[in-house]
Amino acid sequence: MKKLLMLNGPNLNLLGERSPDTYGSTSLTEVENEVYDFLRENGWELTCRQSNHEGELIDILHDARKHFEGVIFNPGGYSHTSVAIRDAIEAISIPVIEVHISNIYQREAFRHQSFISPVASGHISGLGIKGYKVAAFALLEKLTEREN
Amino acid sequence: MKKLLMLNGPNLNLLGERSPDTYGSTSLTEVENEVYDFLRENGWELTCRQSNHEGELIDILHDARKHFEGVIFNPGGYSHTSVAIRDAIEAISIPVIEVHISNIYQREAFRHQSFISPVASGHISGLGIKGYKVAAFALLEKLTEREN
Amino acid sequence: MKKLLMLNGPNLNLLGERSPDTYGSTSLTEVENEVYDFLRENGWELTCRQSNHEGELIDILHDARKHFEGVIFNPGGYSHTSVAIRDAIEAISIPVIEVHISNIYQREAFRHQSFISPVASGHISGLGIKGYKVAAFALLEKLTEREN
Amino acid sequence: MKKLLMLNGPNLNLLGERSPDTYGSTSLTEVENEVYDFLRENGWELTCRQSNHEGELIDILHDARKHFEGVIFNPGGYSHTSVAIRDAIEAISIPVIEVHISNIYQREAFRHQSFISPVASGHISGLGIKGYKVAAFALLEKLTEREN
Amino acid sequence: MKKLLMLNGPNLNLLGERSPDTYGSTSLTEVENEVYDFLRENGWELTCRQSNHEGELIDILHDARKHFEGVIFNPGGYSHTSVAIRDAIEAISIPVIEVHISNIYQREAFRHQSFISPVASGHISGLGIKGYKVAAFALLEKLTEREN
Amino acid sequence: MKKLLMLNGPNLNLLGERSPDTYGSTSLTEVENEVYDFLRENGWELTCRQSNHEGELIDILHDARKHFEGVIFNPGGYSHTSVAIRDAIEAISIPVIEVHISNIYQREAFRHQSFISPVASGHISGLGIKGYKVAAFALLEKLTEREN
Amino acid sequence: MKKLLMLNGPNLNLLGERSPDTYGSTSLTEVENEVYDFLRENGWELTCRQSNHEGELIDILHDARKHFEGVIFNPGGYSHTSVAIRDAIEAISIPVIEVHISNIYQREAFRHQSFISPVASGHISGLGIKGYKVAAFALLEKLTEREN
Amino acid sequence: MKKLLMLNGPNLNLLGERSPDTYGSTSLTEVENEVYDFLRENGWELTCRQSNHEGELIDILHDARKHFEGVIFNPGGYSHTSVAIRDAIEAISIPVIEVHISNIYQREAFRHQSFISPVASGHISGLGIKGYKVAAFALLEKLTEREN
Amino acid sequence: MKKLLMLNGPNLNLLGERSPDTYGSTSLTEVENEVYDFLRENGWELTCRQSNHEGELIDILHDARKHFEGVIFNPGGYSHTSVAIRDAIEAISIPVIEVHISNIYQREAFRHQSFISPVASGHISGLGIKGYKVAAFALLEKLTEREN
Amino acid sequence: MKKLLMLNGPNLNLLGERSPDTYGSTSLTEVENEVYDFLRENGWELTCRQSNHEGELIDILHDARKHFEGVIFNPGGYSHTSVAIRDAIEAISIPVIEVHISNIYQREAFRHQSFISPVASGHISGLGIKGYKVAAFALLEKLTEREN
Amino acid sequence: MKKLLMLNGPNLNLLGERSPDTYGSTSLTEVENEVYDFLRENGWELTCRQSNHEGELIDILHDARKHFEGVIFNPGGYSHTSVAIRDAIEAISIPVIEVHISNIYQREAFRHQSFISPVASGHISGLGIKGYKVAAFALLEKLTEREN
Amino acid sequence: MKKLLMLNGPNLNLLGERSPDTYGSTSLTEVENEVYDFLRENGWELTCRQSNHEGELIDILHDARKHFEGVIFNPGGYSHTSVAIRDAIEAISIPVIEVHISNIYQREAFRHQSFISPVASGHISGLGIKGYKVAAFALLEKLTEREN
Repeated sequence: MKKLLMLNGPNLNLLGERSPDTYGSTSLTEVENEVYDFLRENGWELTCRQSNHEGELIDILHDARKHFEGVIFNPGGYSHTSVAIRDAIEAISIPVIEVHISNIYQREAFRHQSFISPVASGHISGLGIKGYKVAAFALLEKLTEREN
Repeated sequence: MKKLLMLNGPNLNLLGERSPDTYGSTSLTEVENEVYDFLRENGWELTCRQSNHEGELIDILHDARKHFEGVIFNPGGYSHTSVAIRDAIEAISIPVIEVHISNIYQREAFRHQSFISPVASGHISGLGIKGYKVAAFALLEKLTEREN
Repeated sequence: MKKLLMLNGPNLNLLGERSPDTYGSTSLTEVENEVYDFLRENGWELTCRQSNHEGELIDILHDARKHFEGVIFNPGGYSHTSVAIRDAIEAISIPVIEVHISNIYQREAFRHQSFISPVASGHISGLGIKGYKVAAFALLEKLTEREN
Repeated sequence: MKKLLMLNGPNLNLLGERSPDTYGSTSLTEVENEVYDFLRENGWELTCRQSNHEGELIDILHDARKHFEGVIFNPGGYSHTSVAIRDAIEAISIPVIEVHISNIYQREAFRHQSFISPVASGHISGLGIKGYKVAAFALLEKLTEREN
Repeated sequence: MKKLLMLNGPNLNLLGERSPDTYGSTSLTEVENEVYDFLRENGWELTCRQSNHEGELIDILHDARKHFEGVIFNPGGYSHTSVAIRDAIEAISIPVIEVHISNIYQREAFRHQSFISPVASGHISGLGIKGYKVAAFALLEKLTEREN
Repeated sequence: MKKLLMLNGPNLNLLGERSPDTYGSTSLTEVENEVYDFLRENGWELTCRQSNHEGELIDILHDARKHFEGVIFNPGGYSHTSVAIRDAIEAISIPVIEVHISNIYQREAFRHQSFISPVASGHISGLGIKGYKVAAFALLEKLTEREN
Repeated sequence: MKKLLMLNGPNLNLLGERSPDTYGSTSLTEVENEVYDFLRENGWELTCRQSNHEGELIDILHDARKHFEGVIFNPGGYSHTSVAIRDAIEAISIPVIEVHISNIYQREAFRHQSFISPVASGHISGLGIKGYKVAAFALLEKLTEREN
Repeated sequence: MKKLLMLNGPNLNLLGERSPDTYGSTSLTEVENEVYDFLRENGWELTCRQSNHEGELIDILHDARKHFEGVIFNPGGYSHTSVAIRDAIEAISIPVIEVHISNIYQREAFRHQSFISPVASGHISGLGIKGYKVAAFALLEKLTEREN
Repeated sequence: MKKLLMLNGPNLNLLGERSPDTYGSTSLTEVENEVYDFLRENGWELTCRQSNHEGELIDILHDARKHFEGVIFNPGGYSHTSVAIRDAIEAISIPVIEVHISNIYQREAFRHQSFISPVASGHISGLGIKGYKVAAFALLEKLTEREN
Repeated sequence: MKKLLMLNGPNLNLLGERSPDTYGSTSLTEVENEVYDFLRENGWELTCRQSNHEGELIDILHDARKHFEGVIFNPGGYSHTSVAIRDAIEAISIPVIEVHISNIYQREAFRHQSFISPVASGHISGLGIKGYKVAAFALLEKLTEREN
Repeated sequence: MKKLLMLNGPNLNLLGERSPDTYGSTSLTEVENEVYDFLRENGWELTCRQSNHEGELIDILHDARKHFEGVIFNPGGYSHTSVAIRDAIEAISIPVIEVHISNIYQREAFRHQSFISPVASGHISGLGIKGYKVAAFALLEKLTEREN
Repeated sequence: MKKLLMLNGPNLNLLGERSPDTYGSTSLTEVENEVYDFLRENGWELTCRQSNHEGELIDILHDARKHFEGVIFNPGGYSHTSVAIRDAIEAISIPVIEVHISNIYQREAFRHQSFISPVASGHISGLGIKGYKVAAFALLEKLTEREN
């Protein structure tokens, strides 16, 4: 069975606990399960990873190029500051969809710009935790299209 | 049957003909049909509109608040220049998902900023014409969630 | 009897319905009536127009130069983006008073700057819907002064 | 009888003498008298103060909160540089209408921004010395409205 | 006979009447006639259009791609604010020469930048109303060269 | 007994009354008493001054260099606009600790920068009215250290 | 006994050795001991951590929310570049006091801005290594106040 | 016979050899000949000069005021950096038409601004080497018009 | 005998004591005496004033217009922040020469810009305390020239 | 034998595989070997390290100060975002030569600025993978010079 | 006899002819004579040079360090663009006084900044052609002072 | 024998004499000799040129394309201001290595940006006068590589 990676960056381990007004009260595990189920129904497998470490996220992305068809990636706060993660995405050939739970354009000015967006295969934001599932749907559309 | 509106802004009538490298060779009608079919399968109806006129887009959005559950909206070039359309979206209570075909963050600097994003219920870009279908999926998820 | 024009730009047709916290709950017609009555008492006539179309606002302003002594103008969102409307005001010789219902300086940064202000004969903002009546008063003062 | 304060900032003591092209040839006393008369006719009393000292303007504003219903305030050059006066206005609860004689948006760039505007209850500019009377009219409208 | 389009944007219908110091006292019709005559002498036909509406200018440009060899275009105030018109020019394959009557670099800072210039086949400014005739000459040179 | 000066700038005379959400409801006298008591317990004397006048604050700082070991200074709104007060602090040789009651970095952008900070011997902000006592503690640490 | 955490970011392990002109010649252990003793005398316990890894600092902050009453935090160079650490502080509910040894406002422009300050419960800088002890004092004041 | 000067700035001596994609493969002499012939047919004489030296270009412009009716001037890279050449053009009374071969608005940001444009009698760019001939045509129109 | 005013702004009362590296060790009185003697020798009288108060400087400037032929003015730190003093200078008709002791262009960026310079009749800086005498010389040249 | 360290930052482990157009097709090991051989011939030893982790790079640099004479350092994407690495280089006393394979000035604007350059003992860029060998040559020149 | 150099940059050879409103109608030779006479009376000799060539001005400045005690220098348009001339002044040890005839702070924004000012021994502007004589006076004061 | 050109820009003729703290005390001739010897040992010839004239540097670069294999170029102050020299380098096909003696990133902000870097085949800075020899080494590596 083909496999996708769902990768979450810093502070997303606290999802459901951290600022519920902005991020909702569902935990990361619950979100991962919802996406897992959705993909299963469509015949795909999902692996989930989370890390607060910029370097570890880069290592995971490098490694992903050999084992996954695509990545659903929420880079969290590193979106706005990490050229190194951007370079990692550019260096691997599989599609990476960038997801943000909140509407980053309604928040502080430094969140309006993402180093990741220009190198991502797609950008989805502001849809709350549903954004992950939408990204999974988008990735399936994209990968299926490519095959044809 | 519940209804969604798919609204396209300036120059999208030339889709398929205009800069195929950036926007692909599928025509707007073909894209509209694909989204129509997808929604039909899920029990929703779709109405499609396109206009090159900023004022007309505002009129359509105002009117939409009475007849549709949500809007899939590609504001085209007005994304980057229209406070008036932004105000129209803010003034109506139904969810509006902003869609861009291309990866606007890879293009000219003035396309990186959108007046629409901070007031949209979601932002989807860089997925090519598949972005419309993904937006439809996102809107269904959002509207279903709300109902529960 | 001498005549003034009261011209409202985009989204002001939704006055009373749109973001009542910012704009209050009085409808545009009620506001127009209040200004109409005030002017009548002072021996002036008032014509009212509203449009969401930038080009139409320009057409109306061009036409106004032949039929009115002055204009009370709320350009709405076009204040911050329209060089074309600015040029239209500069091109006609009658006084135009710019009105904003809300305190635009308390809102998003892009609303702090108005292309219209440098060419308007006066600028009135932050007084709520009373601002229109104040603008009418200002215009009478201005036009009477000129006559003397 | 209820009372308003008309407060003028730096260099306005030279009104009528200073740059007549920009500010006209009427003296400050003449302007004060015109506003005094207008308010009298409407059943209100007016006190007038002028100072070139930022600190004194702050003292006067602090004091005004106990003796006046509202303030007509032309902060002159301090509009563009004084956070301290801004804080003073924010600290008192009575409405303050900001007035500028000239069209500040037609002049040097540093005059386009006012620290006062975001905390004022209204902003009136570009109407020449008539602006003071218009501000008095606006304040009456505002204070009457509030009472109802 | 081959055909060119001469297209004028907002406020240019007032040419000859509006700010004669900047734009001269010749009317738009007189200018159109002069260019018409010049082209006639060189064996070309000219059609002239003017609109104050951004959307209409886009519609005209879209349509022009089927009926004209090239366009002489003065976008007026939209030059500095319209991404949508820029996209329209980029979307059609015929050459468009941008003309400005005044020296836009001597005027307000916001007029120094044009969204149109990077996609135009040529840029001519500061030559007064003669600029249209010069643009016609340039277009003939360009189209003739291409044929060879 | 050795002496410190506690100096408060514009609008701090209204402490406890002005925007209680931001500044709390304790009056300036109460705050001064708390710092006075704390210093007394540690064998130091405290003198307190407040002024809304930039020039007076400079005069007080100049004078302080002869009578005090150090200054606890809340420059209020002048922090962000006064080069003259900055120069006064630089001109005297005793340590000056800058205090801000609120978290100035959470407020308007113009409050993020302080002309005073680069010349102050320490900067304390965001601790509410407790910040004054913390500054007194810091000054004792600093002055004691210097003696050894 | 209640506990505080003292957390130091990158390069602070070299304290006493690195640029003694800017940071002094006391080692980090000596500083930690001084704060430890001060807190002990006041009936509190102190745990000390240092890391050069952004991700590890985030992990420690996440963990701290369960075991400490508050944090004394010198984020070092990450102050100016880490949105991820900022988000970690915002995500946990205990107070965090930001400390900088040097006067960051006297140094390079990029050190004048801190992503941490807007979410910290207090900001202390420029007091040299005494700043840590002052932060401990501030935290005690803050936590005691809260209890009452 | 009346005379025009055609003046070319730095690197234009390499025309035809330098970056043919941007500047074409025609040599400067060939371009000069084409303009010479065109002017001859219209009864005018042409002198051509080229220099890589800023100071020499200024000397030539100064001298031109006594011997020529107008100048066709491509300032090359000095367009974007030379206030001194700008001042030279302003100091002489004959009309100078600025020509750029390439579309400078499509290239690096520093080429979008020209110190020369605000003082030139006309600006022509993006027409390739045909731009020189168009400038000659424009100058004839301008000089003829003046005579009438 | 004709009279000049020498006016010094904030902190200049500390001249000779304050940062001697930047401002030298001569006191303000000594400087005033040197200028007094120089003017005396040339048949002019000198009055000297110093104030740390922005408002007082404005009052003095207003008053000067009736009693002096010109002003030698060092606005100190207010140079960079005071629109009000700028307006005062513009409002009076006598020439004001701006003097700075230090080379303000070698110091902090905020000292590079002076609100006073555009309205002063001359600007002299970087000459140390000799600058005052040079300004006196310049004023004599200017006033003598005017008489002829 | 004396020793140098060659340290590579994020994504350089993918050298030869990642964007071959920009970085070439030689692997990192091959590059390391080339530099190793060059140094060996000159009587020096080389140790090589690579890490994607900012914190680890800091740890390695700290440690390097005890075991190496100098460092050849390509900080990759961290060049543009890491104040912490900059501080680490400043904190150690051995020379560090910054190397970039590509011409960073031809790429995205955010790559034009490096936090590392101001504290590095030398900066070499744009020479492709040969840049490492050139840096080794430079370091030998520098260290030999120092010895004499 | 000791010698000074008076050096004038680009376009100043046209003094008296160029924009008389800005620069007056006196020729450069007349100005040079006036300064020559003034210096003669004070026992100094004057040599005068003018060039439109940046490189020549640098050569002259280099050479001046061996033959003159000081330089009166009006760099004209190169003030705002020449780092090379700035470096030349910094490289020679004799004092250079920068002179500008016009008030450069009243003109275009690009004239407000001078690369020369931070390295000049004094800056004099806005005094018209009298500025040269004032600079000579300043130089005498400076050189005499130095001797004592 | 193959030949390289070593070209030095403005003020480098004063090397050894000018600001020895920044540039060292070795003269330009000594540096040229060192590079000459180094190249000789490697079988290459070296020609050396220096000029303070921007235009002359361009002429030399143009000419170099016919006689040299590559250029070692220190553009001095023109690095930061000359588009014309940049264009000259781009116009010739031989490799040009940019050298700066000092660490330009530690100096004034305007020295951080170089117009030359994006078009140079390599950039070497901060290595002192050794940088020229390193550039020679780099050029040999580059030219040898190319041959293979």
